[in-house]
Order: sequence, then C-alpha cells, then structure tokens
Amino acid sequence: MKRIQTIEWQKNKIKIIDQTKLPQKLLYIYIKDIKTLWQAIKQMKIRGAPALGIAGALGIYLGIKDIEAKNFKEFKERLDKVARYLFACRPTARNLFYGIERMYNVAVGNKDKSVLKIKELILEEAKKMIEEEKDSCYKIASYGARLIKDKDRVLTICNAGILATLDYGTALGIIYKARQEGKRLRVFACETRPLLQGSRLTAWELKQKGIDVTVICDNMAATLMQQGKIDKVITGADRIAANGDVANKIGTYNLAILAKFHRIPFYVAAPITTFDRRIKSGKDIPIEERDKKEVITLLGKIRIAPCNVKVFNPAFDVTPNNLITAIITDKGIIPPKNIRDTLSAKAKGAPRWGHPSD
Amino acid sequence: MKRIQTIEWQKNKIKIIDQTKLPQKLLYIYIKDIKTLWQAIKQMKIRGAPALGIAGALGIYLGIKDIEAKNFKEFKERLDKVARYLFACRPTARNLFYGIERMYNVAVGNKDKSVLKIKELILEEAKKMIEEEKDSCYKIASYGARLIKDKDRVLTICNAGILATLDYGTALGIIYKARQEGKRLRVFACETRPLLQGSRLTAWELKQKGIDVTVICDNMAATLMQQGKIDKVITGADRIAANGDVANKIGTYNLAILAKFHRIPFYVAAPITTFDRRIKSGKDIPIEERDKKEVITLLGKIRIAPCNVKVFNPAFDVTPNNLITAIITDKGIIPPKNIRDTLSAKAKGAPRWGHPSD
Repeated sequence: MKRIQTIEWQKNKIKIIDQTKLPQKLLYIYIKDIKTLWQAIKQMKIRGAPALGIAGALGIYLGIKDIEAKNFKEFKERLDKVARYLFACRPTARNLFYGIERMYNVAVGNKDKSVLKIKELILEEAKKMIEEEKDSCYKIASYGARLIKDKDRVLTICNAGILATLDYGTALGIIYKARQEGKRLRVFACETRPLLQGSRLTAWELKQKGIDVTVICDNMAATLMQQGKIDKVITGADRIAANGDVANKIGTYNLAILAKFHRIPFYVAAPITTFDRRIKSGKDIPIEERDKKEVITLLGKIRIAPCNVKVFNPAFDVTPNNLITAIITDKGIIPPKNIRDTLSAKAKGAPRWGHPSD
Repeated sequence: MKRIQTIEWQKNKIKIIDQTKLPQKLLYIYIKDIKTLWQAIKQMKIRGAPALGIAGALGIYLGIKDIEAKNFKEFKERLDKVARYLFACRPTARNLFYGIERMYNVAVGNKDKSVLKIKELILEEAKKMIEEEKDSCYKIASYGARLIKDKDRVLTICNAGILATLDYGTALGIIYKARQEGKRLRVFACETRPLLQGSRLTAWELKQKGIDVTVICDNMAATLMQQGKIDKVITGADRIAANGDVANKIGTYNLAILAKFHRIPFYVAAPITTFDRRIKSGKDIPIEERDKKEVITLLGKIRIAPCNVKVFNPAFDVTPNNLITAIITDKGIIPPKNIRDTLSAKAKGAPRWGHPSD
C-alpha cells in the first residue's frame, strides 16, 4: 500500500491531501501562500489537531520566507501579522496555536541573528516538529496498545488517524500498533455528522490498512453498547484543559456519557502538545460554531431542511474529566486527576510557550 | 396554511404525501394496488406508526376490493394472502399490524355475510379507524400539553407529527396544543440520520405551523443538554411492550440516556394502538435492519464511505422503561410501571386482536 502523507514540506510548498475529496479521490494539493492555507484549514481540506499543528508551523514559514526585512523589528512586524492571521482561522484545536507559537518563539529567541538565519531556523524547527509529532504518535500507539485485548471491539468518532496527524495517528495509531502485535480487532466508526470524517476518512483509512471496520450513524452507538458489542471507546482530542477536560469533535461528549452508562472504558488519545495548561477547565475552551449550511445540506450538495430554519452547529464539545477513564499520551497513560502533575513536570523542563499577542 | 393530509382514501385509491420528496416538494401520490403500497411503505414514502396503521387498514381494503370470490372461504384465502404480504413489509411498527389485524377481524367476525357486504364493512372500519386515530392524537396532545410550561425548550427526534399520523401528530401534537394554549415554545429537532426525518420532515412541518424550530445533528443533543438548553425530551413510539419498553426511531435510546444523565424528563407520546401486550419486553421486539446504502450514501445520491465497508443500520432502538418518565397516551399519562394495568383494563373491554397467522 502506498504511504499516506497527510502534510509535508515539498518543493518549497506545503503539500497536503485534500481531505474533502475522500473517499472518492486521494488528491494531493500544493499550497504556496498563507491565504490558500487559511482557506484549506477553514474548509477542512486539512484537519486533525496534530496535523493542524504542523500546518501552523509550516504556515508561519510560508508566510515569512519571502519577507524582505532590513532588521528584526521589520521582520517581527510581518511575523506578527502572519501569526495573528493564522491564529484566527480555527479557534478550538490547541495544536494549531502550538505550531504557530513555537515558530514565533524561534524567531524571538534568535532576534540577534540575521533575518535569513532566522528563516532557516524556523524551517528547521518546523521539520523538527514534524519528526517529534511522528514520534509522539508512535509512543501514544505503544502505550495505548497495552490496553487493547485480543478481539476487542473499539468504537471511535471522527478521524484520529493518519489523516489527522503526520503518520500513524493517535486513537487509530493504537489500533494499528495492537494489530501489528497480533491482536485481532474490530473498529466501529461513528460517521460524525455534519462533515462525516468517520465514514469518509476513518473508514477509508482503516480499509487501506486492512482493519475490520463497520460504519454506523452517530445515533446508533448507544444500541451497539446496549447489545454488548463495544469493549472500549477511544477518541482523539483537539484541546485538553489543565484539569483534564477534553474538547474534541462534536459527539465525543455524547459517547462518553453512553460509555459511562454502559460501564465501558472511555479513552482519549493525544500528544502532550494538545494540552493547554493556560486553560483551567473545559468551560474556558472556545468552541467553534460553523456555517449552518453544513447541517441543512449534505456536503453542500443536497438540501435536507427548510432554507430558513435555525441551526445549532458547534464543531466540538467538551467532555468533563470525570467521564474519561484515562488520557493516552506520548508521556504515558494519564488518569485525568493526574494531568496537572504531568503538565507541571513538563512545564519545569520547557520554556513557557509564547503567544503572538503576549 | 393549506391542510397537510398524510394519508386518506380518495377516488377509490390511497392518497399519500410522498415524504421522500420533502422538504423540496409537497407531492401527493395516488396508490391503486398493494404492490405499490408495499413499495411506498418500504421506501418510507409513508412512515410513522399511526400513519402506517391506516396504511395497513386501507391496504387490506385495496387488496380485497376487487376480489371475485364465490364464498367466504375463497375470500378468506385471498384476504390471508394480502394480509401476510402487507405484514411482511416492515417488522417493527406495531400499528401496521394493528391496522391489518383489525380489518382481518372485521372479515372473520362477519363471515356469514356476503362478500360484497364484508368489503363494505372493511372500508367502513378503516374509515372509523382514521377518525379514531385523529381523535387519539387530539387526546394525546391535550394530556401532553398539561406537562408543557411557558418557554419550554423541547427536544425531539425523527418525525412524530402530522406527517406520521392522520392529523396533528403525537409528540408534535403536544407542541401544537401547548402553542394553541398560548405557551411560548422552542423545539430542537435531531436531524435523525440516516433518512433525516428530523430535518426533512419535522423542521418543515414545524415551520409550516409557525413553531420556532432549530435543527441539530444527532450528536449535538448532549451539548445542548450540558448547556442547560433543553427542558424536556418528547419522542413518538413505533411499538411499546407490555412492560413499557419502547421501540422507536434509532437514536431515541441515546437521547433517553442523555436525558437521564442531565436529569431532564423524557416522555414518549403514542396512542394505545402502539402498545403490544403480546410482547413482554423490549428484547422481544423485532428490529428492522435496513439497507447499508442508507448509511454509505447521502439519500442515495452521494457516496460518503468506501463501497465495500461494513455497515450496521438498525432502523429502531429499544428504550428500557426505567429511562422513561411517562408515556403520554390517548388514555392519559402513564408511568411505565402502570402500563400493564392500563393494558389489562383495555383488554377487558375489547376483543383480543386476531392475527392472520392465528
């Protein structure tokens, strides 16, 4: 099977899979300016928290690589503008901001160097981040696979696989690793309305990898659990607050309640880069509300409700920490109550992430 | 506003709204043979338990009205065939069987009369049943409206309105009545994948009636409840077992769990004709599983998953009685634990419903 490469730096451009075209077509597109990147992120041609982290990082480089600045002050003015522009694209996923902030900090931390050198360092850092994110996925997968038993039937939502990351995936990475270890598995994929990442992306990706997958509509998960057909729920995350509350694709909170009711373990898989220690609890995570067209049409093509009807279309929801069995990270499997400690330990060794508006 | 007439007997044919064409088009079609009727039920051009009851009753008349039989034995052979044919169309909704059985019993109860007379009596009975079902809806609405407070925000799933009944509706009938009584209301309609009766039918119908309605995807209900935006859940029912377990559109059980978790009252609205005292508990209710195309395509028009993927597509689920606050019927508001008594009281006064296979 050909390798699936969600996002990479190639030919001085950002190369991504246009995920709105799947499962019909595996189409790669090249992005050479940040306006096109912004649109691609907004339209979810690229999505998934870790992949958005890289999009943010490469986006910064794309936005500053051709800047002609006489000094750092001039350079920073332009950098600020690019960072703020990309920051405003989607409000919920932590990693997008992390990627932007990290590149920003490289610039600020090297302000005594030449503009040319700073540009080089930013590209280097983005490439380093790509490798780190890949490594995170492998670690998440290795930790998570320990929880998987032979013949487990795992329910997931949205896409937390290769298409959401640099390689391997978070929730689905665990599936791939468990499978490599010889465990037999069955995955149930919630289709994930309105944009159907579960049926369009997860089912496609799992088929490519030869994993047994069954698609269900989002409202069918409860029945599967009632019938004793689900052993575990594993989802990704878009942002995790300091208290372990998790923002993830709309429908995640629903699954967490169902899992609790049916006494099924509920796991979240995410790299440490998805944690946001500046956010105390889930209540403070900004939730993106998207265009009503996503709900009153089917992928913009068929109208399925009266045009002038009201719509509520939050792209994410917040699952409180008490519904989460554990968060599977690249630093180990963490029960939500221990998240504060993990974040503090990390904070000690790492510089405080800057913020373009700081 | 023009009156919406879901199903009626007109010009010696069954006239129905083709509900697969909504919300784009309000199209009435005439059905003059039972094969076409069978297809219309299967394809859900007509749906909703009470409306299917009438479709079954009128279907029997349609199937026997032109039979040329020398005696009752000959007539009954053909009647058996028609009844069995219609019986096999959809397995879950109680009312379809009730309508068929009731017409069947008219024939058997009048076997000494001429075939011509029996045909007349069947049509009369079907027309009587139409009036009874309308009356049931008004009674359900009147009882249910007592539970509604001013400014209530009600969540519903699928369509339990005019389009599912003869007039007025069950769950939505309560909304209409409460509104007539001057109460201000807001309805949230789950879109109800895969066939989208919530966005296509309920939103359309409520807009026609001037009710404030907001469409959500099925996986967004939990978030609305978390935000304190839902005061009550009211759904219809396709079959109710003797212990008060309720089979209804897939997703209902999910909502019942969410309502329990968020301490929101969960009501089911249905006529007594939806109760099936021969079924002891929900476990014994046969659940229809429908074509995988409904899940891997959007209304048969756009493919949204790999062609060869597995699908689980149950059309209904079963909500256990302990998740139901009360069932709102035409005989009053019944807590699930009292259902057995209500059914026994009814059974005393009424003849046991026959069954074509008895």
